[in-house]
Amino acid sequence: MDQRLPRGFSGVGVAAKIKPSGRKDLALVVSDKPAVVAGVTTTNKFVAAPVIYSRRVLESGRRVRALVVNAGNANAGTGEAGLRDAEAMAVFCAREIGCESDEVLVSSTGIIGHRLPMGSVEKGISDAAGRIASEGDLFGVAETIMTTDTFPKRVWAESGDARIFGIAKGAGMIHPNMATMLGFVFTDTDISRDDLQPMVSRIAERTFNSISIDNDTSTNDMLLVFANGESGTKAPDDFEAKLEGVCRELALKIVEDGEGATKIITIEVTGARTDAEAKTAGETVATSMLFKTAMHGEDPNWGRILAALGRSGANLDPANVRVSLCGTVLFENGLPVNVDLEALRREMKSREIRVSADLGSGSGAWTVYTTDLSREYIAINADYTT
Amino acid sequence: MDQRLPRGFSGVGVAAKIKPSGRKDLALVVSDKPAVVAGVTTTNKFVAAPVIYSRRVLESGRRVRALVVNAGNANAGTGEAGLRDAEAMAVFCAREIGCESDEVLVSSTGIIGHRLPMGSVEKGISDAAGRIASEGDLFGVAETIMTTDTFPKRVWAESGDARIFGIAKGAGMIHPNMATMLGFVFTDTDISRDDLQPMVSRIAERTFNSISIDNDTSTNDMLLVFANGESGTKAPDDFEAKLEGVCRELALKIVEDGEGATKIITIEVTGARTDAEAKTAGETVATSMLFKTAMHGEDPNWGRILAALGRSGANLDPANVRVSLCGTVLFENGLPVNVDLEALRREMKSREIRVSADLGSGSGAWTVYTTDLSREYIAINADYTT
Repeated sequence: MDQRLPRGFSGVGVAAKIKPSGRKDLALVVSDKPAVVAGVTTTNKFVAAPVIYSRRVLESGRRVRALVVNAGNANAGTGEAGLRDAEAMAVFCAREIGCESDEVLVSSTGIIGHRLPMGSVEKGISDAAGRIASEGDLFGVAETIMTTDTFPKRVWAESGDARIFGIAKGAGMIHPNMATMLGFVFTDTDISRDDLQPMVSRIAERTFNSISIDNDTSTNDMLLVFANGESGTKAPDDFEAKLEGVCRELALKIVEDGEGATKIITIEVTGARTDAEAKTAGETVATSMLFKTAMHGEDPNWGRILAALGRSGANLDPANVRVSLCGTVLFENGLPVNVDLEALRREMKSREIRVSADLGSGSGAWTVYTTDLSREYIAINADYTT
Repeated sequence: MDQRLPRGFSGVGVAAKIKPSGRKDLALVVSDKPAVVAGVTTTNKFVAAPVIYSRRVLESGRRVRALVVNAGNANAGTGEAGLRDAEAMAVFCAREIGCESDEVLVSSTGIIGHRLPMGSVEKGISDAAGRIASEGDLFGVAETIMTTDTFPKRVWAESGDARIFGIAKGAGMIHPNMATMLGFVFTDTDISRDDLQPMVSRIAERTFNSISIDNDTSTNDMLLVFANGESGTKAPDDFEAKLEGVCRELALKIVEDGEGATKIITIEVTGARTDAEAKTAGETVATSMLFKTAMHGEDPNWGRILAALGRSGANLDPANVRVSLCGTVLFENGLPVNVDLEALRREMKSREIRVSADLGSGSGAWTVYTTDLSREYIAINADYTT
């Protein structure tokens, strides 16, 4: 087992034949000791059954022993029957590993509107439970939860004695009807749920909730952080910063894997009245199709940035707004700045593009991350049929 | 002069060499008698100089004699100097036709961040004023205000003795840095400003403000309605309905001319708590890139519609939501409906697609109009460089 992986967690991925391709599609993670768990789930009003089930476990405040995740089928849009299937997954898993069903969290991603093939799911859980002791390794789980991802997403960190390991999936959407984002982070630090939950909520807002590929949220989105205390020491002072670093890196890997993306764009908004207003302004730029196509075309089109800021609802006076692209100020004092556009276009050929906008209204600030919008995105999303 | 055109208005378009192409780019419309005018302008905080100037005229409540519009240059992002240029256009026009400068409205569309070539503008106004008496015809003005439009947009109607004629421009955006939408409607009915302004505000909300090609709003957007009373009779009871019909048809022509659009999509939301909530829900669907690409691919992907409704912020319980596409119910009672997908795909080959969503929460309703999202949109918007 990799020395960098947090102690006391085992994981395994198996091919349960939920995906017709025969690829690995069911993962099981077990914590030797019951782990504190904190999480954030989708805000979409159409919520998948595993999210409804897992929210109950999260809200109970109970420590948990296991997480079971399947790809290939989201168990969403499946009504009451789907909820019973999610519960059955937990019950079955609990029986296999020897714990209570409310010590098991459940997550699904894949096509929506279809019942889970419960025979395959149960066989897969049984298979995974049998192999976890001998083959168990958190490392391989990242591959099992992939859907349209082109690479597995894993990030490690250390905070004092504690180890942190996170995995994620998400890349816009093709086969699931929506762009499901899953993030699971495992740490062996010792932290209470009362400390961990608000920390995870803050971090999710600054990381996974600050990326936008196509502004859609899914029925199945979920970030879970498990802490089993096996390092034997309390979470150090830098634990939140390290955990945030892991979540930010995972989120950026999702951006990097965005459908048809050729650019990773960081949008820093400063000078807003509040952080929330800065976030809204940044998101309006990040989701503007005109802005995203301009970035794809490597066109320093400050007008599209201003247009998005101006309609975002953020308080601003054009005379006080300053907009920069790749470090070059393009607009300030209400007027465009004369710059060497050819030099700037060369800068924009880089894979990473940074936009800075100071609204000149206060001290609120936020950073959001997005991609460009390419023909490839259209091809992936229009040519695929359900 | 066309019998259907409202009495007492003359219009002319000239080539003032604001556009390098040498196409007609400056239009003048004169009303024989001072006309009541009502209008709605962009809500974007970056407001072009002609909009700032024209808002003052609108707010003064004065009757107006003329409208001067140029294409090729938006006079936006031009600071205080740009505002002086907009005022100078009005002053110059007033002198040419013999009225006060606050009886002249000014509008511009085109590239942003560049000062107007005032020599060309003044020569164009002078040229137009000289020709308006002999050649004047409102009909040709629609061509003059085109930028990336592929066809001129004109709509006629009658309401009792009154004639209504509207023109518009807008097609997403290429050369202007933003998607400017201009709508000008001329009628010879007799109506007070106090009646006309709230009517225009209501109508704008239901027509021009209910279309979305790419969700961007421009620095220069403007809808103006001129009523000069030359029909000699008071506005009939059906005048608002007829005026709304003209504005809706103009708005739909803008949708039809949307960049890269292959579909005209009508999204009817019913059963919301309020009309405003229905509008927000419809707009969230209309601007979802996942939805728009699915429509482009003629894919009956109800999941993307549900995902957008679910994240729109509208109050809903998935169990009460019903979603239809081209008249076929795809989702109700919390579950997908088994339908003949092949037959539905054939229906979706039509240029016009209708989506209906009943949220099951109340009696609020709204209809929004949008287009699909195609490779062509990306090509137009990414490959063009400023």
